Amino acid sequence: MEADKSTGPAPARRERGKRRDPSAKPLGIPYIVRNIPTYDILGEEGLERIEKTGERILAEIGIEFRDDPAALELWRKAGAKLDGLKVTFEPGMLREIVASAPASFTQHARNPARSVEIGGKSVVFSPAYGSPFVMDLDKGRRYGTIEDFQNFIKLAYSSPWLHHSGGTICEPVDLPVNKRHLDMVYSHIKYSDRAFMGSVTAENRAEESIDMARIVFGRDFVDNNCVILGNVNVNSPLVWDGTMTKAMRAYARANQAAVIVPFILGGAMGPVTNAGAIAQSWAETLAGCALTQLERKGAPVIFGNFLSSMSLRSGSPTFGTPEPAIGSMVVGQLARRLKLPLRCAGNFSNSKLPDGQAMQEGVVSMLSAVHCGANFILHSAGFLDGLLSMSYEKFMMDADFCGALHAYLKGVEFDDNALAFDAFQEVGPGSHFLGSQHTLRNYQTAFWDTELSDNEPFEKWSDEGGSTDIAARANKKWKRTLAEYEAPPLDVAIDDELQDYMNRRKNDVADAWH
Amino acid sequence: MEADKSTGPAPARRERGKRRDPSAKPLGIPYIVRNIPTYDILGEEGLERIEKTGERILAEIGIEFRDDPAALELWRKAGAKLDGLKVTFEPGMLREIVASAPASFTQHARNPARSVEIGGKSVVFSPAYGSPFVMDLDKGRRYGTIEDFQNFIKLAYSSPWLHHSGGTICEPVDLPVNKRHLDMVYSHIKYSDRAFMGSVTAENRAEESIDMARIVFGRDFVDNNCVILGNVNVNSPLVWDGTMTKAMRAYARANQAAVIVPFILGGAMGPVTNAGAIAQSWAETLAGCALTQLERKGAPVIFGNFLSSMSLRSGSPTFGTPEPAIGSMVVGQLARRLKLPLRCAGNFSNSKLPDGQAMQEGVVSMLSAVHCGANFILHSAGFLDGLLSMSYEKFMMDADFCGALHAYLKGVEFDDNALAFDAFQEVGPGSHFLGSQHTLRNYQTAFWDTELSDNEPFEKWSDEGGSTDIAARANKKWKRTLAEYEAPPLDVAIDDELQDYMNRRKNDVADAWH
Repeated sequence: MEADKSTGPAPARRERGKRRDPSAKPLGIPYIVRNIPTYDILGEEGLERIEKTGERILAEIGIEFRDDPAALELWRKAGAKLDGLKVTFEPGMLREIVASAPASFTQHARNPARSVEIGGKSVVFSPAYGSPFVMDLDKGRRYGTIEDFQNFIKLAYSSPWLHHSGGTICEPVDLPVNKRHLDMVYSHIKYSDRAFMGSVTAENRAEESIDMARIVFGRDFVDNNCVILGNVNVNSPLVWDGTMTKAMRAYARANQAAVIVPFILGGAMGPVTNAGAIAQSWAETLAGCALTQLERKGAPVIFGNFLSSMSLRSGSPTFGTPEPAIGSMVVGQLARRLKLPLRCAGNFSNSKLPDGQAMQEGVVSMLSAVHCGANFILHSAGFLDGLLSMSYEKFMMDADFCGALHAYLKGVEFDDNALAFDAFQEVGPGSHFLGSQHTLRNYQTAFWDTELSDNEPFEKWSDEGGSTDIAARANKKWKRTLAEYEAPPLDVAIDDELQDYMNRRKNDVADAWH
Repeated sequence: MEADKSTGPAPARRERGKRRDPSAKPLGIPYIVRNIPTYDILGEEGLERIEKTGERILAEIGIEFRDDPAALELWRKAGAKLDGLKVTFEPGMLREIVASAPASFTQHARNPARSVEIGGKSVVFSPAYGSPFVMDLDKGRRYGTIEDFQNFIKLAYSSPWLHHSGGTICEPVDLPVNKRHLDMVYSHIKYSDRAFMGSVTAENRAEESIDMARIVFGRDFVDNNCVILGNVNVNSPLVWDGTMTKAMRAYARANQAAVIVPFILGGAMGPVTNAGAIAQSWAETLAGCALTQLERKGAPVIFGNFLSSMSLRSGSPTFGTPEPAIGSMVVGQLARRLKLPLRCAGNFSNSKLPDGQAMQEGVVSMLSAVHCGANFILHSAGFLDGLLSMSYEKFMMDADFCGALHAYLKGVEFDDNALAFDAFQEVGPGSHFLGSQHTLRNYQTAFWDTELSDNEPFEKWSDEGGSTDIAARANKKWKRTLAEYEAPPLDVAIDDELQDYMNRRKNDVADAWH
C-alpha cells in the first residue's frame, strides 16, 4: 500500500548543512498509527445507494470546470462528455481513474524524523487553516499579521501533540496578497522542521511554493517524493473554479499532493439531508482526485471531507454539530472503498470565545475526524468564530486535547502486563493498587497527562490556583511557550537561497492588496 | 428480548386521578432508539482474554461480601465456595446465573408516555447523581439542599432532551441523613412524571423508596413491573459491602432493577492498565448481577460501568480522560456478550467551572457512553468538580448537548428523500439549495437546533448579544426555566397517601445527621 518511492534516500541537498538532532524538542512521535478500528456506521446497502447517487450526479447533472481550458482538454481526452463547461462522466469512470493514486504516501519534512505517513492507519494532526482574524484574551479579535502567522508556527512546533506545520494558519493581511505566499512558505521552513502546505490561491503561487520546497529538498527529490501539500476547494455545488484546478494540477504535475476538499454547508451549497450532501461530496471530490491523475498518473492526492450544517433560522453556518459529525463517518467509509488517503476537518466551533461551547463543538468534530479514519486532520487546533478566527488560547487547548487523542488512539492492550492478573494476586480484595509492583512498573506510561486541565481538589484550585478557567491557563501557556521557543537550525546556504528567491519574486511584480 | 410483563395494562391504582396529557410539555421522545451501531473497538481475542482474566479473578482471588450473612448463604446454596467472607466462583458459574435476567425491560413512569425501555437499542439520559455540593455562577459552591434537589428535578423535567428524573441528583444535606430519602423520592414523584431512582444507603431506605412507588403504581403492578431503580456501588477492589448488597437484594426482591456499578479509579481501586481494570469491573459487576438473580430469578438488573483514571503526579482522580473513554467501549462489548442492559456514566469533569475543560471532558465521556452502547446513561447532565458538585449552568449545557445526541444517534438515512437526487436536478451546478423544493420539504427537521450555543456572526454576537459565553447564557436559561416551570398534575389521593407515609416514617425515628 505504501509508496516505495517515499522510503528512498535523502537527497544530497539535505546533506549541505547540519542536521537537527531528531531527539531534540519538540518531543512526541512524528504521527499516530491508530490502534483502534474506524467507526463504520453505515452498512453495505447505504454505502452503495450513496455511491450510486454520486455516480448519477456525475453522469446526469455533471460538474462545471470554469476558467481552465486545459482541464477540459484532459477530461475530453479521458473520455468524459463535455457540454460547454459542464462535464459528465460515465458511471465507474472516475473510480477507475483514481485507482492509480497511492493509498498511502510519505510527506517528507526537512527533519527526516518528522516526516509523516498519510494513508492507512496513520493520523496526522495539523493546525487550522485560512482565518482572516486572530484573537486572544488580551487584545480580542483583529486581522492576522505575519507575526501572528509565525507565532502559530512556533506554537505548533513547540507542541509534542501536533505533527504538521499546516499552511495558511491565518491570513497575514499586512502583506500584499500576491506576495504573502512567499513569506508563509518561508516561515514554515524557517520556524519549524515539520512538513507543511503551500499556496493555492493562484497557479504561480502554487508553483512558487513548490519551487521553495525544491530549494530545501532538491529538485530530483521533489520530483520523486511528496514534500508539500496544496489544499484546494470545490466551489460547491458542482463547480470547480480554474484557480483551484490550475493550482491542483500544478501540485500534481510536480508529484506533490493536492488535498481535494468540497465545502458543503447543508441547505446552502448542498442538500439539507446528510445522504445527499455526502453523495455530492463524493462526486465533487472524486472528480478532483481524478483530475490530478490525468495531470500526472500516480501523483499522491488526498480525498477531503468538509461537511457542515447551517442554522435554518438565521442562515448562519454551524460547526461541530451532530449531523456533519455523523456524516463524516460515512465519508470515511467511502474514502476507504476508493483506497485513497482521507483528510477531515478537525476541531472547529462557532463560538467567539474559548469557552464551553468552543470545546463542546470542537471535541464533537475532532472525535468525528478521528473515528472516521481521517489520515490528515486539518484544523486540529485553533479555530473559533466559525472558521474566521484563530484563537491563541483555543490553539493551546486544542493541542492539549490532541495529546489526549494520542492515548485514545492507542486503544486497549491485552497482553499479560495489561491484564494485570499478578496485581490482583498481590493486592487482593479491599486493598489498593497505589504501591503495587504492577502500578510501579506501569505508572509512568499509564495515563495521559494534561498540561492545561485542572485536576486539583476544589480548595487547592481556589486557594493556590487562583480559581482560573482553562482559557486563562491557556493564555499563560502560549505566552510562556513563545518566550521559550527556539528555532530549529536551518542550513545557512538554504536560508540564503530561499531569501534570494523570495526577493527576486517580490521584485518581479507590484504589490497587490486584493 | 423484551420482558412481556412490561407491556401489561396500567394498574387500577393509576386510574384514580386525572391523567396528564402525554402531549403536554415537556416535548421530546420518551427515550432514544439508536440508529447507529455501537463502536466495537476490540476483537474476539482481546474480549476472551479479558473475560478469562475476569473468571480467574472470580475463581482464584474471589470477592468479599461483608456484613450480609444472607448474601453469603445465597452464594453457598448456589454452589460458590466460601472462605470466611471471601467467595470464589467456578469459571462460567456466574455467567450461567445471570442468564435469567432480562436483556431489556421497561421502567414505568407515572405518566405512561414517559416510560423508558432499558436494553437493546434504547438510550436513556438521566441527570447526574450523588454530589454533596451544588454551584452556580451567582453564589458559587455550597452544600446542596432539598430546594436545590427539587430545582434540578424541575430543570430535568423541563428539558425535552432528558428521559429520566434520576435519583440523588444532589445530596439535600439540610435534611436528616436517615430521612432525606423520603423527601427525595417524594420530590421525584411530585415535581416530575418521569421514571426515577430510589435510595440505597440502607436496606430500610431502599424498602421505603419502593413502598412509595407502590403507593403511586399499586402493589401488584410493582410486583410485576419495574417502576424504580436503585444504583449500588461495589467497594472496589473486590468487596461488596452489606449496605449495598442488602439494598440491591431489596430491589431485586421487589422485582425492581438494581444498577450494579463498580467504582474503579485505575491505580487506586484497580490496576493502572485498562485491560486489568476492565476485567475487574466485569468480575465485580457480574457478581452483583448474579446476586440479584439468586435473590429473585428473573428480576431486572443493569450491568454498570464506571472506569476512571487518576493523576499519577497528585493522586487526584481524573474524569473525561481518554483511557476510561476507550475502556468503556470494551465494557460495552462485554455487557452485550452477557445479554444484560448497560449503564454508563455520562458527562463528567474535574473542572470547577462550566468552562472549556468542563465541556471537553464532558463530551469525551458522554460520547464514549453513547458509542459503547449504554442503555441507561447516568450523569448525563450537571457534574463538575470531579463528581462533587452539581452545577446549574453545566446542567443546562449538558442537557442541550443531550439534544445534539438525539440527532447524532439518528445516524444517516438513505431513502430517496435523504439522497436528494431531485434536489440536484432542480439546483444544478453553481446555484444554491436554500429555496429548493427539497430544502423546503425538509428544513424543519433537517438539523438539530441548539438553545445555548451562539451561531451569530461576530458583530451581532458582540453588539446585540452582549459578548456572552455559553455559561452566561446557561445562567439566564436555568433561571427562566425555573420561573416558567409548571408541575405535572398528581392525583390528590396519591399525594396525600405519600405524605402520610412519609410523616409516619419520619415520626418513627429520631433525626440522624451522620
